[in-house]
Amino acid sequence: MADESQKWVLLATARTPTNIAVIKYWGKRDEKLILPVNDSISVTLDPDHLCTTTTVAVSPTFRQDRMWLNGKEISLSGGRFQSCLREIRSRGGDVEDKEKGIKISKEDWGKLHVHIASYNNFPTAAGLASSAAGLACFVFSLAKLMNVNEDQSKLSAIARQGSGSACRSLYGGFVKWIMGKDENGSDSVAVQLADEKHWDDLVIIVAVVSSRQKETSSTSGMRESVETSLLLQHRAKEVVPKRILQMEEAIRNRDFGSFAQLTCADSNQIINLAEKWNRAEGTPQVAYTFDAGPNAVLIARNRKVAGLLLQRLLYYFPPNSDADLNSYIVGDKSILQDAGLGGSKDVEALPPPPEIKDNIPSQKYRGDVSYFICTRPGKGPVYISDESQALLNPETGLPK
Amino acid sequence: MADESQKWVLLATARTPTNIAVIKYWGKRDEKLILPVNDSISVTLDPDHLCTTTTVAVSPTFRQDRMWLNGKEISLSGGRFQSCLREIRSRGGDVEDKEKGIKISKEDWGKLHVHIASYNNFPTAAGLASSAAGLACFVFSLAKLMNVNEDQSKLSAIARQGSGSACRSLYGGFVKWIMGKDENGSDSVAVQLADEKHWDDLVIIVAVVSSRQKETSSTSGMRESVETSLLLQHRAKEVVPKRILQMEEAIRNRDFGSFAQLTCADSNQIINLAEKWNRAEGTPQVAYTFDAGPNAVLIARNRKVAGLLLQRLLYYFPPNSDADLNSYIVGDKSILQDAGLGGSKDVEALPPPPEIKDNIPSQKYRGDVSYFICTRPGKGPVYISDESQALLNPETGLPK
Repeated sequence: MADESQKWVLLATARTPTNIAVIKYWGKRDEKLILPVNDSISVTLDPDHLCTTTTVAVSPTFRQDRMWLNGKEISLSGGRFQSCLREIRSRGGDVEDKEKGIKISKEDWGKLHVHIASYNNFPTAAGLASSAAGLACFVFSLAKLMNVNEDQSKLSAIARQGSGSACRSLYGGFVKWIMGKDENGSDSVAVQLADEKHWDDLVIIVAVVSSRQKETSSTSGMRESVETSLLLQHRAKEVVPKRILQMEEAIRNRDFGSFAQLTCADSNQIINLAEKWNRAEGTPQVAYTFDAGPNAVLIARNRKVAGLLLQRLLYYFPPNSDADLNSYIVGDKSILQDAGLGGSKDVEALPPPPEIKDNIPSQKYRGDVSYFICTRPGKGPVYISDESQALLNPETGLPK
Repeated sequence: MADESQKWVLLATARTPTNIAVIKYWGKRDEKLILPVNDSISVTLDPDHLCTTTTVAVSPTFRQDRMWLNGKEISLSGGRFQSCLREIRSRGGDVEDKEKGIKISKEDWGKLHVHIASYNNFPTAAGLASSAAGLACFVFSLAKLMNVNEDQSKLSAIARQGSGSACRSLYGGFVKWIMGKDENGSDSVAVQLADEKHWDDLVIIVAVVSSRQKETSSTSGMRESVETSLLLQHRAKEVVPKRILQMEEAIRNRDFGSFAQLTCADSNQIINLAEKWNRAEGTPQVAYTFDAGPNAVLIARNRKVAGLLLQRLLYYFPPNSDADLNSYIVGDKSILQDAGLGGSKDVEALPPPPEIKDNIPSQKYRGDVSYFICTRPGKGPVYISDESQALLNPETGLPK
């Protein structure tokens, strides 16, 4: 190994997508190795809209392993990071860069400390599967740095030990995590069922319901949402009081119709919207599922349907009057144009969807959704060779 | 105060219901005092089916405050217990029992240690709102023991500081938790909208989905469910593999109808069931909501409808062949008779509900539900004077 007086820093940067399970995993048969009790299937989301970027570095000058997430230093001592780091280190290969004077043999990896900087292009706290993208990127970028000669499937088994669903973020498109049989987990790996081009007219819309907290959810999550979310304040001040009055009246009159409508509305507006529409059309236009936290994920069969879906979503869940449509619909904003929605005025002018015409007058849920992310099935991890995009300074090995 | 050489133990026992929010609370404006950002409304569940029983005791012989939950000693040091205990102690009144030679003046409460034994008649870990019933019972029984001369509404403000939704368990029937305005929380209290007799034909069915764990739910919850649930094993071995194959085929063929059906099914079978039926009937027969954890709460408009609902629930979610119907439907089992379901054979013979006749062949979800609790709106806390029902030994002050 180059002696410690040397000043070189060796870097690798990668970008990894997140994924949404359409058949979920329901439990673990081994807690430590994260081995599931069933296979699961996911769609990888376009990393242009939702991804983690990670730069990893080694240098003889580093005195300890360190990690920064979104610019803030965090502890690397967690078991999930340590498992992945140990697995990758033990598989490292020889690296030589004569120009920089770097020569590392595979035995050296255990002695060299790493610096890791990671960045999510979406709110970490929003309940989107940031740990899936994060751990996948951690493993993928370290494997690149340490010249690990393993196929993607082997890497997925390592990422799995960091965060179960992370193994599915090693591939683009449609991915299956095979539960496997081995006690050591070597066959509990992800495989690609089809790449992102196979079914590329699907549109995925994530409704980020930042304020939606189950009554029993974590205390800190609630505090954060109250402090940060003007939308929640609006909801608490404008939306709920009306429903409280209606519910009191329904109880007073033993009016089961209103009671049921209000009870269900408080639980599942987005499901109601999707079910009502699918039913009216006769064939499913949109699938829905829920992932980490309360966010709803809607999958439209094609771009045309996605435009119609966005009209419905904006009809039921309009932005606050002072909110910018541009920050309310993020990701692939072209769906807005497809839906004929150029600005807030177009949203206000949206007519009720035809399928509710004969029903109970429609209720609006202004303030229930924080914002929508429009995206699509996307590609798997990529290695970013352009050093200007690295998150660590190539001279110091510290965050830029 | 009686001197410490005396051996008396003074006891009080109470039973307190749990409650299900039909308009939920969405966040806290004050974390420490547990002050919500909106009013909420709940239905109190019949304590015969779901309740907490708590015995509290004081004695000059007790050396420290101690608590047992379901027979196991737990720490009382948590802030939520301490807040409630402090509030009640400071409001204690004089107590005299000449027969037992007990004389306690209100100043003594701060010096006397308490023993508390609490028991839930339902699984604590099942994700049912055990903390609501538990903290309400903690406060209600202590207030009785210490002769606190406050109305139920004041007690609700104390219970609220232990667990927000606990304040609603101080009343039976239909209850509103008023968010209040005062900074000190004195007006953030529960009030009764109507008692349990006001609308007594409602039937409430709780589907305890013990194994249903979101992908990101707590690790320990998952472990418990895997180790304890044979149903989950069945689901993992029999149900999911079929869906995995169907999903792979749907992706291969870009078959959006099947893709949507499988995605939504994995998320929300119970909602689908309810929506489909309500739609077919034209007017809502059943309301649904979700409370702590993944359990679904279904509210049927009357007993007749509840029988029809149970037929549907058992059609879609049959018990495992070797499971006893008697342990699959708990609480008010008379609904089973109403539904004409005397045993497992009747369940197997159930025809598909008429509303799915023209639809895609119906899928069964054997193993998805752990068991169903049939219950109804119920009464508020009661004081149990029969000492034979106390959970602490009146001689020793220790759990029986």
